[in-house]
Amino acid sequence: MLMDLFDRLFPINRSITGDGVRESLSILGEIVPISQKEYPSGTECFDWTVPKEWNVRSAFVKDGQGRTLIDFKENNLHLMGYSTPFQGYVSREELMEHLYTRPDLPDAIPYVMSYYKENWGFCVEHSRLAEFKDEWYEVVIDSELKDGHMTIGEGFIQGSSGREILLSTYVCHPSMAINELSGPLVQTMVYRYLQQREGDLKYSYRFLYVPETIGSLLYLSQHGDELKRNVAAGYVVTCVGHGEAFTYKKSKQANTLADKAAMHVLKQSGKLHKVVDWNPFGSDERQYCSQAFKLPMGSLMRTMYGEYPEYHTSLDNRSLISEEVLEETVQMYIDLIETLEANETYECTHIHGEPKLDKRGLYPYTGGTRTKAQQRQISAITNLLAFSDGSHDLMDIAEKLNVMGKDLREAALLLEQHGLLRNVSSARYDLLTQMG
Amino acid sequence: MLMDLFDRLFPINRSITGDGVRESLSILGEIVPISQKEYPSGTECFDWTVPKEWNVRSAFVKDGQGRTLIDFKENNLHLMGYSTPFQGYVSREELMEHLYTRPDLPDAIPYVMSYYKENWGFCVEHSRLAEFKDEWYEVVIDSELKDGHMTIGEGFIQGSSGREILLSTYVCHPSMAINELSGPLVQTMVYRYLQQREGDLKYSYRFLYVPETIGSLLYLSQHGDELKRNVAAGYVVTCVGHGEAFTYKKSKQANTLADKAAMHVLKQSGKLHKVVDWNPFGSDERQYCSQAFKLPMGSLMRTMYGEYPEYHTSLDNRSLISEEVLEETVQMYIDLIETLEANETYECTHIHGEPKLDKRGLYPYTGGTRTKAQQRQISAITNLLAFSDGSHDLMDIAEKLNVMGKDLREAALLLEQHGLLRNVSSARYDLLTQMG
Amino acid sequence: MLMDLFDRLFPINRSITGDGVRESLSILGEIVPISQKEYPSGTECFDWTVPKEWNVRSAFVKDGQGRTLIDFKENNLHLMGYSTPFQGYVSREELMEHLYTRPDLPDAIPYVMSYYKENWGFCVEHSRLAEFKDEWYEVVIDSELKDGHMTIGEGFIQGSSGREILLSTYVCHPSMAINELSGPLVQTMVYRYLQQREGDLKYSYRFLYVPETIGSLLYLSQHGDELKRNVAAGYVVTCVGHGEAFTYKKSKQANTLADKAAMHVLKQSGKLHKVVDWNPFGSDERQYCSQAFKLPMGSLMRTMYGEYPEYHTSLDNRSLISEEVLEETVQMYIDLIETLEANETYECTHIHGEPKLDKRGLYPYTGGTRTKAQQRQISAITNLLAFSDGSHDLMDIAEKLNVMGKDLREAALLLEQHGLLRNVSSARYDLLTQMG
Repeated sequence: MLMDLFDRLFPINRSITGDGVRESLSILGEIVPISQKEYPSGTECFDWTVPKEWNVRSAFVKDGQGRTLIDFKENNLHLMGYSTPFQGYVSREELMEHLYTRPDLPDAIPYVMSYYKENWGFCVEHSRLAEFKDEWYEVVIDSELKDGHMTIGEGFIQGSSGREILLSTYVCHPSMAINELSGPLVQTMVYRYLQQREGDLKYSYRFLYVPETIGSLLYLSQHGDELKRNVAAGYVVTCVGHGEAFTYKKSKQANTLADKAAMHVLKQSGKLHKVVDWNPFGSDERQYCSQAFKLPMGSLMRTMYGEYPEYHTSLDNRSLISEEVLEETVQMYIDLIETLEANETYECTHIHGEPKLDKRGLYPYTGGTRTKAQQRQISAITNLLAFSDGSHDLMDIAEKLNVMGKDLREAALLLEQHGLLRNVSSARYDLLTQMG
Repeated sequence: MLMDLFDRLFPINRSITGDGVRESLSILGEIVPISQKEYPSGTECFDWTVPKEWNVRSAFVKDGQGRTLIDFKENNLHLMGYSTPFQGYVSREELMEHLYTRPDLPDAIPYVMSYYKENWGFCVEHSRLAEFKDEWYEVVIDSELKDGHMTIGEGFIQGSSGREILLSTYVCHPSMAINELSGPLVQTMVYRYLQQREGDLKYSYRFLYVPETIGSLLYLSQHGDELKRNVAAGYVVTCVGHGEAFTYKKSKQANTLADKAAMHVLKQSGKLHKVVDWNPFGSDERQYCSQAFKLPMGSLMRTMYGEYPEYHTSLDNRSLISEEVLEETVQMYIDLIETLEANETYECTHIHGEPKLDKRGLYPYTGGTRTKAQQRQISAITNLLAFSDGSHDLMDIAEKLNVMGKDLREAALLLEQHGLLRNVSSARYDLLTQMG
Repeated sequence: MLMDLFDRLFPINRSITGDGVRESLSILGEIVPISQKEYPSGTECFDWTVPKEWNVRSAFVKDGQGRTLIDFKENNLHLMGYSTPFQGYVSREELMEHLYTRPDLPDAIPYVMSYYKENWGFCVEHSRLAEFKDEWYEVVIDSELKDGHMTIGEGFIQGSSGREILLSTYVCHPSMAINELSGPLVQTMVYRYLQQREGDLKYSYRFLYVPETIGSLLYLSQHGDELKRNVAAGYVVTCVGHGEAFTYKKSKQANTLADKAAMHVLKQSGKLHKVVDWNPFGSDERQYCSQAFKLPMGSLMRTMYGEYPEYHTSLDNRSLISEEVLEETVQMYIDLIETLEANETYECTHIHGEPKLDKRGLYPYTGGTRTKAQQRQISAITNLLAFSDGSHDLMDIAEKLNVMGKDLREAALLLEQHGLLRNVSSARYDLLTQMG
C-alpha cells in the first residue's frame, strides 16, 4: 500500500500553497481522517505573512527551431517554485539569468524556489546546458499567483489524559521522495495504527501536515499556547525512507521526555543509530523549539536532510526510497509510542528490605531451580521493587535491565495489583513536562 | 591458619537455622569474640517471619537391592535444605519428582532449598541418573523441623567517635567454599587485625554473621534505626576467595563514603578490579540499602556470585579457594579501613599565597638539590596546603598525587603540628554521612 | 627582533634582586613602557620578607697550579644564586661540600640557589669533576649581599570597561632560555600589539614582570585586593619558546573565563595542545590562585617546566628556543585576547519562531542557490539567533559551529544593528566573574 500511495502522490506539483497540497492531503485522507484548514493570503503569523496562492497549468522553454527544451509536464522540478506568469521571447543571455543548474550534480534538476520575491525561473540538468545554443527562446509559464489560501492538514485522536503527543510532517515539495513523501507516508501509517487503539490511549495524538516553516509558524500563531500547555512529547517526521541507520535529532532543550523516550527506544532496539544535537538547519523543530514555545520535540529520521547527495534535486526519487525502510520506521515510531504509553512512575510500598514474594506467588518456593522465563520475570519484579522510589520511571528501570520500557509494563501492573507498587506518575509527570 | 579453619568448617551442615550455624560460629569464636543471639521461630521481621529450626541426623536413598545411591553423610548438599522428615518406599516416578540435578553441569550436586514451603528432596549429579533404574526406593530423612531459634553472630570493637563501620557476612550455606566460607574467614581475619588496634581506633567496628536475607532483615528489624544513625560506611563480605580481580559492588546510593573509599583504595592499589552498580541480585546489601535504611554499604568481593560456573553447586569447594587470594583480600580490607581511619578534612590556615616552608624546616633552603624522598615529602606538603580548603579530604588530595589516602596521614599531622592545617573533619563528616 | 633581544638579555646575571633585573627590564622597556618599582629589603609580604639585594662582580675557583677551573664570567650559572662573599683557600673536601653537579646530566651546569640561607657554592658539569684532583683551591666570590631593593616591572593599557586582563611573567633566572627569557619576550610582544590597539579595547591590560614566587607575593601584598576586584582573566606567561604543542594549565577554580577562553581558542586553532589541571608545582599561578585571591588565572605555555630534560640547567639555552615558536605563541595570545575582546552575550529579540531574514536583506530570496560564503554567513546568523538566549556567549555558539568566537563578531554586530539581538553581556559578565 505504501508504494501505491507513493506513486499516486509523487507526480503532484506541491508547493507551500496551491491545489497540489489539497490533492495530496485528500489522497492521504482516504487512509485516515485529515481535516483541511484554509488560511487566506495576508494572514500574519509572527514575523511572516501568508503569501499569495500559486498554481501552475503548464510551463515550457522552446528554442529557435521550436524544439521543446524544458517542459514542466515532464518534471515539475523544472519550474522554479512560485514562478510568476510569463510569456515571450527572451535572448539566450536573459534566459541564462533565469536558468538554475547544479554543476556538482550534472544529471540532477535542482530544486529552487522564490516564495517571497516575484520572479520566474527554470531548473535543468547541468549536462544539458550545451543544448541551449540558439540566440532566442520562447518561454511560457502559464501559472497563477493571486490571493488565495494556505492549506494545513490536521488529524486528532482523543486520549484519556489531557496531555498529547504531536507528530508533524510537511507537504510542500514537488516531486521528491525522501525529503517530502517519506514523512507524510510514515506519519499516516502511524496515525492509522493509533486509530485502531482509539479508546485505549493515555495520550491524545495530533498529526499535522503543514507547508514547512511558514506552515508550522502559522499553526503556532493560531494554536501555540494550546500546544505549549498540552504537548508532552513530539516528533517532526521527515527523511524517513532511506538509509540503514536511524538519526535522532534532539529537541533544543535536549533533556525532554521526547528525547529520553526516543534515545531509550533506539538504544534498546539494538538498531544502528546516531543522535545529533538540535541546530537551526533543519525542519519544523526550528519553530516548535523556539524560545517562546520550547515544545519538547525532536525529530526521528533515517538518513537526514543534507547528508545524502541527492537532497533537493530530482535524484531524490523512487530509486532512493525503500518500502522496508519505511515500514521499519513506522514500527520504530510505534515502539516509541507504546513505550510512552506504558511509561509510568511507581513507588514501592514496602521499603523495609525486600517484601516476601513467594507467599504472594511471585517467586518460586524452591531456591536454585528457576527456568529462564522465571528468571526474566523475577528480574523484572525485583528491579521494579528496588528502584521504584518515585523518581525512576519504567524507562529508567528498563535501562538497567537492558530491555525496552514497554516490556516492564506487565510486571509493573502485577505488582500494582498486589499492592506492592503505587503509581505516582501524575506528580512525576508534571515535573518532566516542566523540564521539557 | 586460614585453611585449617576452612577444613574444620567445610563439612558442617549449615542452613538458615540449626546447630550447624552455632557450631560454625563457635569455631570462629576461638579466634575473635563472637556473641550468639537466638531469635525464636515466629519472630516477625517486617514482611518475613523466622521459620522453624531445622536439623538433620541422617538421610539416604537406597535402591531395590539395598544399595545406597545417595547419602547425606557423603555430602550435605545431597539433601535439599529444609527437607521435612520422611521414611518410606517410593516409586521411581515419585522419587524423580523429588530429585534435583543440573543437566548443564552433569558432575555437580546442585544446591537446592525450600525454606518456606514444606517439602523434601535430594540433589544428585546429573551424570548419575542412569543408576536410578529400579522401580522402588527406600527413602529415609531423619530430620527435625520444629519451633526453635535463628542464630545471629555479632562482634564489636569500640572506637573513639560515635560512628561505626559495619562488616557483614553470611553463615547459612552447607559445604561450599567461595559462596559461603570465604566471607566468614576473611571477615574474621579483619576482625582479628582490628582487635590488635583496639584503643587506637576512630571508628567503632561491628561484625555481623547472619543467615543471608532473613538474617539481615531480622537484625535490621531489631537494630535498623541504630545502624542508620551510626554507620559511616560498611561492606558485605562475600565471594572473597577466588579470582585474580577484585569486584566492588557499589551501594545503592552510589556516592557514599563506603563507595568513595573502596574505589579509591582499589584504584591506588594498582590491582585488577572492576566496579559494578548496585542491583537487587546479590547478598545482604539488598536489605541494608533498602529505602527505609539506605545504609552506606557496598560489597568488596573477588569473582562474584553468578560469575563463576561452579556457583551454588558442590563444585564450589576447596579446589576453587586459594589461601593467597584470601590473604590478599584481608590486606585490601585492612588498607581500606586504614584509609577510612586516616581520612580527615583540613583547612589551610595560611591562605595568602604559599606559606614560607624553609623557615619551618619543611623545605630545603638550597633550591635545585632535592632527593626523591624529599621530593615526595614536598609534594605531599604542598598539595595538602594547596587543596585543604575544607571540602577536599585526604582521599581527594591523594587522588591528585596518585597515592593512597593513608599515605598522606603523616605529612598532614606534621602540618597540623606546625599550625598550617586545621582539622575540620567533624563538619565535613556529618555532610558526607548525610549524603550516604 | 625577538632573537636580537634574546641575545642582549641572555648573558645578564639575573636573580630575585639586583642590577641584572633592572638592566633586563630597561632593555625590554625600549620596546614598551615598563615602570620599575623598588621595594626595600625587609618589606613583609604575607609570610615572606624581601631579602637583601645581591650583586656579583666576579667569582672563580683556581687549583693548586693557579689554573682557573670555574669562572663566573664564562657562565653565570657557575655561581650558586645568592652566594655570599668569600675569599680564601679551601681543601678539596671543603670545596666538594660547596660544589653542585647533576650526575644524570653530566654535561650540564645545574641551576642552584640559596636565597634565604646564607651560604656559597659553585655549580659545574659533573663530567669535569675529574679535574678537581688537587688538595687545595683558591676560591674568590666578589659578591655583595646587603640591604637594597627588590624590583618589579609593570606596564598598563587602559580599556573602556573597569575590568582588566592580567599577564604575568618572571625575571629572576640567570642565563636560561625557555624557563626564563621566553616568558618576558612573548609577553612584551603581546604588550606591543595591544599598545597599537589602545583606545579600542574593552578590557584594560596589566603586564607584570616579577621575580618568581616572592615577586608575585610582594605584588599581591600591595595590590591583591585591587586585582581581586578587577581581573576578569589572566595568564602566567612562561615556557613559551620550545616544543610543537601548546600546554594550558588551568586556574585552580578550573572553570573561569580564563580557562574557557584559552581552551576554546586552542581547540578552534586546530593546533596540537594539552590541558593540565592546576597543581602547586609551577610558577606564579600558585600565588595568584591561592585561597585569599582566587584570581581567574591559568598559564598558556608550550613544553612546560619539568617536562624537558634541560630544565634548570645550562642546557636550557639558545639551542632550544625557536623564533617561530615564540611568534606562534604571540599569535595565540593575540587570538585569545581578541576572542576575549569580542566575546559578548546576546538575547534574541524575536522569540516566536525564526524572524524573516530575507525581507531584512539577511538571507537570499531564492532558495537552493547559495554560495559557500553566503552559507557561512547564514550559518552564523541563524545560530546566533537560535542560541542567543542570554546564557550563551559568542564562544559557546562558536563551539557549536566549530569556529573561533571572534569570527562571529561581525554577524553579531549586524544582527544587533537590525534590532534582532540585544547585548546583555553586563549581567552575564558579572556572573562569569563571580564564578571565577
